[in-house]
Amino acid sequence: MSTKKLQVGVAGLGRMGKRHALNFHQNVPRATLVAVSSPDAAERQWAAENLAPHGVTVYESYDDMLAHKGLEAVCVASATSVHAEQANKAIEKGKHVLCEKPLGTTVEVSQTVVDAAAKRPDLKVMCGFSRRFDASYRDAHAKMQQGLIGRPAILRSQTCDVLDPSGFFVAYAQFSGGIFVDCSIHDIDLALWFFDEETTKVKSVHAVGITAVEPDLRKHNDRDNAVGTVEFYDGRIAYLYASRMMAAGQEDSTEIIGTKGKLSVNLLPAENHVKIYTPGGIRQELPQTYWDRFRAAFTTEAIEFTESVLEDKPLPVKLASAVAAVKIGAALQESMIKGNKIWFDEQGNRTEKAQL
Amino acid sequence: MSTKKLQVGVAGLGRMGKRHALNFHQNVPRATLVAVSSPDAAERQWAAENLAPHGVTVYESYDDMLAHKGLEAVCVASATSVHAEQANKAIEKGKHVLCEKPLGTTVEVSQTVVDAAAKRPDLKVMCGFSRRFDASYRDAHAKMQQGLIGRPAILRSQTCDVLDPSGFFVAYAQFSGGIFVDCSIHDIDLALWFFDEETTKVKSVHAVGITAVEPDLRKHNDRDNAVGTVEFYDGRIAYLYASRMMAAGQEDSTEIIGTKGKLSVNLLPAENHVKIYTPGGIRQELPQTYWDRFRAAFTTEAIEFTESVLEDKPLPVKLASAVAAVKIGAALQESMIKGNKIWFDEQGNRTEKAQL
Amino acid sequence: MSTKKLQVGVAGLGRMGKRHALNFHQNVPRATLVAVSSPDAAERQWAAENLAPHGVTVYESYDDMLAHKGLEAVCVASATSVHAEQANKAIEKGKHVLCEKPLGTTVEVSQTVVDAAAKRPDLKVMCGFSRRFDASYRDAHAKMQQGLIGRPAILRSQTCDVLDPSGFFVAYAQFSGGIFVDCSIHDIDLALWFFDEETTKVKSVHAVGITAVEPDLRKHNDRDNAVGTVEFYDGRIAYLYASRMMAAGQEDSTEIIGTKGKLSVNLLPAENHVKIYTPGGIRQELPQTYWDRFRAAFTTEAIEFTESVLEDKPLPVKLASAVAAVKIGAALQESMIKGNKIWFDEQGNRTEKAQL
Amino acid sequence: MSTKKLQVGVAGLGRMGKRHALNFHQNVPRATLVAVSSPDAAERQWAAENLAPHGVTVYESYDDMLAHKGLEAVCVASATSVHAEQANKAIEKGKHVLCEKPLGTTVEVSQTVVDAAAKRPDLKVMCGFSRRFDASYRDAHAKMQQGLIGRPAILRSQTCDVLDPSGFFVAYAQFSGGIFVDCSIHDIDLALWFFDEETTKVKSVHAVGITAVEPDLRKHNDRDNAVGTVEFYDGRIAYLYASRMMAAGQEDSTEIIGTKGKLSVNLLPAENHVKIYTPGGIRQELPQTYWDRFRAAFTTEAIEFTESVLEDKPLPVKLASAVAAVKIGAALQESMIKGNKIWFDEQGNRTEKAQL
Repeated sequence: MSTKKLQVGVAGLGRMGKRHALNFHQNVPRATLVAVSSPDAAERQWAAENLAPHGVTVYESYDDMLAHKGLEAVCVASATSVHAEQANKAIEKGKHVLCEKPLGTTVEVSQTVVDAAAKRPDLKVMCGFSRRFDASYRDAHAKMQQGLIGRPAILRSQTCDVLDPSGFFVAYAQFSGGIFVDCSIHDIDLALWFFDEETTKVKSVHAVGITAVEPDLRKHNDRDNAVGTVEFYDGRIAYLYASRMMAAGQEDSTEIIGTKGKLSVNLLPAENHVKIYTPGGIRQELPQTYWDRFRAAFTTEAIEFTESVLEDKPLPVKLASAVAAVKIGAALQESMIKGNKIWFDEQGNRTEKAQL
Repeated sequence: MSTKKLQVGVAGLGRMGKRHALNFHQNVPRATLVAVSSPDAAERQWAAENLAPHGVTVYESYDDMLAHKGLEAVCVASATSVHAEQANKAIEKGKHVLCEKPLGTTVEVSQTVVDAAAKRPDLKVMCGFSRRFDASYRDAHAKMQQGLIGRPAILRSQTCDVLDPSGFFVAYAQFSGGIFVDCSIHDIDLALWFFDEETTKVKSVHAVGITAVEPDLRKHNDRDNAVGTVEFYDGRIAYLYASRMMAAGQEDSTEIIGTKGKLSVNLLPAENHVKIYTPGGIRQELPQTYWDRFRAAFTTEAIEFTESVLEDKPLPVKLASAVAAVKIGAALQESMIKGNKIWFDEQGNRTEKAQL
Repeated sequence: MSTKKLQVGVAGLGRMGKRHALNFHQNVPRATLVAVSSPDAAERQWAAENLAPHGVTVYESYDDMLAHKGLEAVCVASATSVHAEQANKAIEKGKHVLCEKPLGTTVEVSQTVVDAAAKRPDLKVMCGFSRRFDASYRDAHAKMQQGLIGRPAILRSQTCDVLDPSGFFVAYAQFSGGIFVDCSIHDIDLALWFFDEETTKVKSVHAVGITAVEPDLRKHNDRDNAVGTVEFYDGRIAYLYASRMMAAGQEDSTEIIGTKGKLSVNLLPAENHVKIYTPGGIRQELPQTYWDRFRAAFTTEAIEFTESVLEDKPLPVKLASAVAAVKIGAALQESMIKGNKIWFDEQGNRTEKAQL
Repeated sequence: MSTKKLQVGVAGLGRMGKRHALNFHQNVPRATLVAVSSPDAAERQWAAENLAPHGVTVYESYDDMLAHKGLEAVCVASATSVHAEQANKAIEKGKHVLCEKPLGTTVEVSQTVVDAAAKRPDLKVMCGFSRRFDASYRDAHAKMQQGLIGRPAILRSQTCDVLDPSGFFVAYAQFSGGIFVDCSIHDIDLALWFFDEETTKVKSVHAVGITAVEPDLRKHNDRDNAVGTVEFYDGRIAYLYASRMMAAGQEDSTEIIGTKGKLSVNLLPAENHVKIYTPGGIRQELPQTYWDRFRAAFTTEAIEFTESVLEDKPLPVKLASAVAAVKIGAALQESMIKGNKIWFDEQGNRTEKAQL
């Protein structure tokens, strides 16, 4: 085993960028965080105080960071709308890339990253679907593969954020691609993973949504609660729920139902092992954010990405599946807004209505 | 309080009929089971052994049972396809009626019962939606009405039967009206109850289904796993799952998600308070049938129906909502089979596509 | 099966007496509540309003009730201090007896009931240990007998009442026999049941207690929280906790730990299947009283006692075990107050210290 | 913040030593594992393969490791019987010490470490009570300190290992100090922590034990299941259960019961967020070892110890409490073997019997 360390830069220092930067700095023994970039002065100030003392260079310009001497890999954690552009630039400069999900808000944009990566097989380019690195989801997937539940037929999955009354989600919706591309993309990726992304083909999608707490989302063609159904040609169904309205905390649950059994992941979320008994009952607290729930998964993701680069091992998640997920997510978003059910033929092209 | 007892007859002695008969016999202090009827010789033999010794008369013909001297009320627990006909005959003969769900497999047939009952306001005619009598659902409904979760916006609910490898469900599908009319009717009724059946109006329904374990269901236009979405005009969504494929037991769960909180009912089913610790982990057993799960609710239903008749009090569930539930269930079944999304206008008529 | 009904009287109309009376009246199809008695005017007033309209005669004097024409059985639900006396009188008058636990607060008093019953083998005399009739405990016991957990070696059990700040428990302690005789008697009975009361012999007991919320209990030689250990000669241990201080509700839990597995009963109490999600977490409510938790068990107890009398079948619980339980409970109470460990020889006599 | 790293050596490479070595190597960014020692050739072989390639020097002799150039701190993870001796030698050589629990199997031996540390106030010497670093226990402790449960009065805690049919525990018992000193020491430490170790004083201890699966433990004066009670002068009780016989996995649970509420930690252990639904019920797997359950706590412990040394900050756990815990653990072990209740006066000296 080499003792060499990977020189990593993080692009974007917003909510997720800060976390990725600290994660690479503190939790990935074989990586060294050498640079970060952000066009936002307040974010750079945070980095100046928290990262610069540890030898991390802080850039305003992403391009400048790419030119940082010795930089080998980039973690793209900026706004979704620039994910693809930044990933492509990094590939062009010969950097390995770990890109936050989704690659882009449309299939076309997402595909550009896959195309760019295809020209540089020497580089490791991965889209970070954090749940694939979570110990519980991995355990469930392994149990499924061992045949514990027979053939998986139905997947129910949800990504539900805690209510944020500050209006954050309205501003965020302008660039997020919408609730199905931003939240449900995780659940769609799980469906592709558990149903076998190599062979399963989407047949139809349908979605509905409401604005129960944030009517202003409608001006960005988005909703705060949405339910989607994805039908596959091999006789499987995934049905999804996404919400920005949870009162108790982050609730990301999944059920995989097979012909001989079922696996559930995180059906009753809990912050830790404590239960509180007071008048009114027994209570357990919940993680409040996606990061709180998947903190360890993000660390595993960064460690395995780093290891894959240093040891030139295959990446744990194929890049192409990120495009497949965006394709489904964007179609669900469109179905929700327009009200139509959307059909695909077996080649993946849109069609009027599939043969039943 | 009167000490008079209600003279009750039960029509049908199949799976559910036997249970209803025993329920009225053993658990309803103010009712006396006086008669039962079944066209099936084996079923009548069972009654001859188990009920006749307690003074219950066993009839082959339903009409003959209706003529039983002193009979005041009928519990219709026969095959779904004759529910409406038997209910209507009972009403015609001046008997109170507790009819198993659904009233019929179509809106038209179901409506005949409502019409018949409307002509006899002196009679109590109720469709037995058992979950409305379950202590947990009632507690959840009361908490919602107290405002604990704000305005309810999303309802997720499932009715999932344990896998029965005998092929029972294939034969049963011939007369059941299909999985949405037979199983999901409970969940639809819950949506009407929690969303306020007086004011909420269905806007669209969409459903998909598969045959993961019972391909022969297709010859009866049915499926063994189905997912449906029901959109309402007042900005609410109910999404439903029904299955005949559960490995561990009966799984009937519901979540009601509001703007300020959420209530779940039976998210992790358990047969009782026992947990079993053996190599492999900690395990809890599940009720195996719908009756096992809702046994106490069926008793409450029979007791309250009896009380309503004896004391001439309003029925706990309005008959009209049973038609509204069948309307939605039948539309979901049609959507699943034909592949179309189905729209309704605000008057409840089918339309090409609603105004978005 | 006979259709005869058992004519039952209930002695005592306090907290438990009212419940037993209503239980026999409403939930036991083969029994008829014909009489109740109470020396307390307010209690009799309650009965005059709630029971008399249904044909129940209300007596001030227990002796008068015993003389009620046609009375066949008595349920003794009065204060613990008169349990034995009333049971003995009933036996003397040739009545079957269902006596609330404990038979008495001392071994000597309890034994008088066993002796009286021994002279009348034609009568059914049972001490009502409600948990033996609870579906969960029965399921656990059956699983143990099937060998699921190997040989049971350790039993942990608790009976913990919700905090009652009214001072009720101080007044109650005067006649209850103390927390080990009043509460832990249930847990002791479980130990005798699961460890096989026919063969297991107590070797030592030790207890400590505190008054965390009710210092006035000390004047009645009682405590509000107590922990006891019971050692048996065949290499088994039961350890017990009793409390009057629970904040969230009634918490009666048990674990039976064997050489190959463990069974737990009611480790996380819940009022029903509802969970409440609000800011602060996910919450479940608890039953607030012993009766709320064991309502169905009390019904089963009354039904089985009635059936045992009517059909002359063996009683489900042997009377002698009630004395064995009081013996252990009273020794634990003494150990808690005096501070000594108490030893028994294999014949059940107290001894200085057992051979180790 | 300094970027200096602490040079750490680990003594002992058995079950726990390996884990501590890997922990310091992989999970503590501010520490560098520079040396390990073990008298066992197989253990050194493991280190030669797994640690030496990363620059870790492997020693046979502990004394030689202490002389390793640049070594600043030692983690003592060897057999309990040499904990104190190795800790004292390290202190003598001017090294900071993180010592696995317990310091020793007797109060006298444990006290020598406290005395040695007292002479070197410049050194950080800590006994590693892992549960104090567990996020759930810390959350519970913080909630208690905020007054959420009123005054804590009762603590129930258990440390229960999975059954190991290999006979490991018999051999291990020779040097472990017995089940109360080896296992329950954790629970005793929790009692001292939650009841305030500065002020609470033990009044009596009593214990019983059995050998349900490992009769050979008796030759080392040990048992495989043990129940202990610890009474404190300020009106509090801790009661403890330790076992080597769990069928399903590691079960370390704690309840802290106060005058206004209760906190439980890990009442229903779970390996992760997965539940498995198969015929027979719903199942969750358990961590199989103490390390599996407390992996993250051991990392936090090592990180905080390292930080305490590097930043010269107070240690998170006082050394003196480790002696207090051994005192109680050794007395419980004695009580279990001899059968006597053991009393202490308020000065901590043994006495015939305390004033009640």
